[in-house]
Amino acid sequence: MRRGAQLSDEKVAVGTIPAGINTPEILIDVAKLEKNIARVAQRVAGQGLKLRPHSKTHKMHEVAQRQLDAGASGLTVATVGEALSFALHGVPKIFIAYPLWINESSAARIIELMKRAKLSIGTDSVAAVQQAAKMLGEKAAKVKLMIEIDSGHHRSGVSPAQAVEIAGAARDLGLRVHGVFTFPGHSYAPEAMDSAINDEHKALAEAACLLREAGHNIKRISGGSTPTAELSDSSVLTEVRPGVYVFGDAQQYELGRTKWEDIALSVATTVVSRHEGDGQIPRRIVVDAGSKVLGADRPAWASGFGRVVECPEARITALSEHHATVQWPENRELPAHGTVLRVIPNHVCIAVNLVDSVLAVHPDDTVERWDVASRGMNY
Amino acid sequence: MRRGAQLSDEKVAVGTIPAGINTPEILIDVAKLEKNIARVAQRVAGQGLKLRPHSKTHKMHEVAQRQLDAGASGLTVATVGEALSFALHGVPKIFIAYPLWINESSAARIIELMKRAKLSIGTDSVAAVQQAAKMLGEKAAKVKLMIEIDSGHHRSGVSPAQAVEIAGAARDLGLRVHGVFTFPGHSYAPEAMDSAINDEHKALAEAACLLREAGHNIKRISGGSTPTAELSDSSVLTEVRPGVYVFGDAQQYELGRTKWEDIALSVATTVVSRHEGDGQIPRRIVVDAGSKVLGADRPAWASGFGRVVECPEARITALSEHHATVQWPENRELPAHGTVLRVIPNHVCIAVNLVDSVLAVHPDDTVERWDVASRGMNY
Repeated sequence: MRRGAQLSDEKVAVGTIPAGINTPEILIDVAKLEKNIARVAQRVAGQGLKLRPHSKTHKMHEVAQRQLDAGASGLTVATVGEALSFALHGVPKIFIAYPLWINESSAARIIELMKRAKLSIGTDSVAAVQQAAKMLGEKAAKVKLMIEIDSGHHRSGVSPAQAVEIAGAARDLGLRVHGVFTFPGHSYAPEAMDSAINDEHKALAEAACLLREAGHNIKRISGGSTPTAELSDSSVLTEVRPGVYVFGDAQQYELGRTKWEDIALSVATTVVSRHEGDGQIPRRIVVDAGSKVLGADRPAWASGFGRVVECPEARITALSEHHATVQWPENRELPAHGTVLRVIPNHVCIAVNLVDSVLAVHPDDTVERWDVASRGMNY
Repeated sequence: MRRGAQLSDEKVAVGTIPAGINTPEILIDVAKLEKNIARVAQRVAGQGLKLRPHSKTHKMHEVAQRQLDAGASGLTVATVGEALSFALHGVPKIFIAYPLWINESSAARIIELMKRAKLSIGTDSVAAVQQAAKMLGEKAAKVKLMIEIDSGHHRSGVSPAQAVEIAGAARDLGLRVHGVFTFPGHSYAPEAMDSAINDEHKALAEAACLLREAGHNIKRISGGSTPTAELSDSSVLTEVRPGVYVFGDAQQYELGRTKWEDIALSVATTVVSRHEGDGQIPRRIVVDAGSKVLGADRPAWASGFGRVVECPEARITALSEHHATVQWPENRELPAHGTVLRVIPNHVCIAVNLVDSVLAVHPDDTVERWDVASRGMNY
């Protein structure tokens, strides 16, 4: 944990805040983004694993393209809509890592999608496999099924024994079981990472073993969140699906899993209210980045609702829809009204999904507007 | 508090879930919406107060129009972009209840806005008043300034004495101080309402009194969140600005301030995963409405991350971006895979701001798609 670390401005302020912008506005530091993409691509390749980044973090074609250019073996998405958005952009291999329940409307879109990309989808029940067979008809045989294993997060996913039952039902219906996956979501807490990695590897190894014993040709064993991706073991896994690593966020920083100087996304925000306070009323500033741009995520262990780039010791103690209340250190002067600061959101995937576009700031200070192309594509 | 109340289906299921929809999808029950709009309009008028509803809850022209038709004296918004969206739709009077810091870009948009609507804006500092004068030039004299008073929420806003100082600076610059406003945000907690209303009335009355003594012609005294709006006193206030009342949400319900049968918005969601559980792994279903459609708001006193319409005793114990994990009562059978349920979000303003459009379901079961016109307009 590195809460409250003080860092020099030089260490964080690569790129500048474009002049005259409206706030709140999400800024991407393109140099840092590209460095993060290259670093993780190299490390994962060095471990002998494939990288299939989760695009739910960024939802932008410009970022996906950079991931593919750096060697990603395809993309991971959460919804059919996201998959279509990236397939239309030309992403050739897509994994919908979600236990899809396919209805008539989504079936039509999935069949469209299969014309454009090699598709794998998640499942965790016999019922969903039967539904896929029914809704996709003869196309069902072309989809690669990935069975979701519950490795301890207790959200979706099944036990290795149940996976064998599901795979059997799929085989009986002529569907192809391609692999297993899990999301070690219980790694998103302090001190939880090592045991979560162990849980993940154990559950996936057991599931793959049982499925192979039952005669299934298991080709893909997929795990790995951003916290665990770089620690994954290629003797068990074949690929990892980290998402947050492209930008980093305050949550990953406070868990000690992203370096401050690697964080590539911040929200430019203006000081709209400032109060010296007195004994009863707190000394504070209010900036115009609220939960409608930062997201309201705040795990119990987080130091606040995000972190201020220009003053890491400051604490965002309250968040309304358009206000962040920031307690400013007693030994530092309150910034003047109108000052533009930057806040690092707690959970970057949520922040990006709140805006239609972002400002990408290049190392030479030129600025591009990037669309959050699959924003809000919840189905 | 009415946590865990059991209610018959008849009492909640006005309208039906449209057949074959994709999920997660936000549904509006138009009959309930119109009833909520009419009820609050009548009560507020009966108290001798004006109603200037906060549009940040709905961001939809169709809802704003119904509010105006029911007698609203104008609309409240949080940003210049929202104001423009509604002004272009024809809303004649708009209050940006926010301590705006006007820069060159927002000044141009504000001047555009003033061609279309009578505009009032919030302020809580001499610096922001000076900035408004500088940025708006001769147009500044036409804006009605509303000084924000801190009535105990300790976010933005000043003391009544500071308000006199700000108003003096405004007068010296030729700007018009029209009134005072506050947001009693500290009323959003159990048992906090009565004291928050007292705080609000006391602070606004004192500010108005001091400003009038200083020679300012205070015409508007504006307060009232949804919890407090119907209890406001016209001997102090002239208007109230509730927002959430149009839809209601799980938060207001659990605070005892919205009736279950008045809730007009829900998220249709599909059961994608179900688990009978055992001693160690919890009995649960997973539905496809996660924080990317419900929002992650969860006050400490809330029973979960929203409420299930079809089973109010169920508890949403965890929320990921595309998954809600729901603990289902032991005495009720788990719903089958593919079942479409409805979830009432904790904080409806956040949920609406996550989608580009909603499905409005009329009493005769016809369906319209309404755009969330000012979604994501954070500036």
